[in-house]
Amino acid sequence: MLTVVRKSLASLGLQLQLNLLARYKSTQDVKNALIILAPGAEEMEFTISADVLRRGKINVTVAGLNDCEPVKCSRSVVIVPDTSLEQALSHGNYDVVVLPGGLAGNKALMNSPAVGELLRCQDSNGGMIAAICAAPTALAKHGIGKGKSITSHPDMKPQLKDHYCYIDDADVVQDGNIITSRGPGTSFDFALKITEQLSGVKVAEEVAKAMLWTYKS
Amino acid sequence: MLTVVRKSLASLGLQLQLNLLARYKSTQDVKNALIILAPGAEEMEFTISADVLRRGKINVTVAGLNDCEPVKCSRSVVIVPDTSLEQALSHGNYDVVVLPGGLAGNKALMNSPAVGELLRCQDSNGGMIAAICAAPTALAKHGIGKGKSITSHPDMKPQLKDHYCYIDDADVVQDGNIITSRGPGTSFDFALKITEQLSGVKVAEEVAKAMLWTYKS
Repeated sequence: MLTVVRKSLASLGLQLQLNLLARYKSTQDVKNALIILAPGAEEMEFTISADVLRRGKINVTVAGLNDCEPVKCSRSVVIVPDTSLEQALSHGNYDVVVLPGGLAGNKALMNSPAVGELLRCQDSNGGMIAAICAAPTALAKHGIGKGKSITSHPDMKPQLKDHYCYIDDADVVQDGNIITSRGPGTSFDFALKITEQLSGVKVAEEVAKAMLWTYKS
Repeated sequence: MLTVVRKSLASLGLQLQLNLLARYKSTQDVKNALIILAPGAEEMEFTISADVLRRGKINVTVAGLNDCEPVKCSRSVVIVPDTSLEQALSHGNYDVVVLPGGLAGNKALMNSPAVGELLRCQDSNGGMIAAICAAPTALAKHGIGKGKSITSHPDMKPQLKDHYCYIDDADVVQDGNIITSRGPGTSFDFALKITEQLSGVKVAEEVAKAMLWTYKS
């Protein structure tokens, strides 16, 4: 009888260990994204990025650039961040840092020493950085990825073409750890490219299909 | 001399009256949109509608269904409404009432007697009603536009096909005062169709171009 109980307990213990291992592995597999929300950010570029990444099984933290107070975006949509950038950075590293565009929002990203430090740290660790619309000029300002292939909103090209290999004819450009895109109308493909990189092409395609979007990876 | 001064004053008065008239006309020409934001609304469908309409020179009021407290959307983006639905309705009529989708958000729209009353009033006045994704089922629930041509998220078709002329192969369907659309991936064309109806096709095309979107009106 005792032997049976011992065997059962041993079997239960092994199962428990396997469960814990699976859970640990599952936690390890979840990718983390940080989206920085600055006053004047383009709300469609922000919302599409946050929503699509969450649909794509990525753990998204929305960090207010200045604090965790509600942020008024470029067309007056007011969004409440999950936390402040300062607090978000104390919680560890992120697999991707996402910068939405919007003229005023981007100016704030350009003028932020904390964003500069974060981007340089992310880049030197080989972490992914994704910027859309006006935000690739924040990469230039903070000295990120110079010489790489990028795109942006066409109005930003003059500020970028001397520092990067500027691509005119693609909605989304990836060069190593840097993903860039053009504007609100290319936001779905931008967010799906990030999803593809972190969760795989199959997940990206499933997310696109549920949204009634055709994703050309 | 006195005659000259009198003439100048008369001329100045006339100019002032003309300026006031132009300003009054301009105010009269501004169209008003009401977007109802319910807990669990699809945040991309909401944000794209609000942003695109504002780019299209339409005065947008974002009304929280229950109150004016921040609203948690379907993928946890938190948005602060401009006002509550109750307050918004006390401010007069709207040229269009917009219903974003999202399963939980749509359920709340379906269960709201205030939304039902508003939609029936809007419809009987010939005012425009626009619903996307799951939200056309709220139109059905409140008895709006039965028999008309509509579309929706494909998952909602079974709830709609017996009451409407259901269109499978169009991203946006307009039948008189009712505009419907399919999901997040069709939100740009949905919002641009509303913009086209209220501000004209030229404005809609300009808005689309600035967003790097190709609008097929």
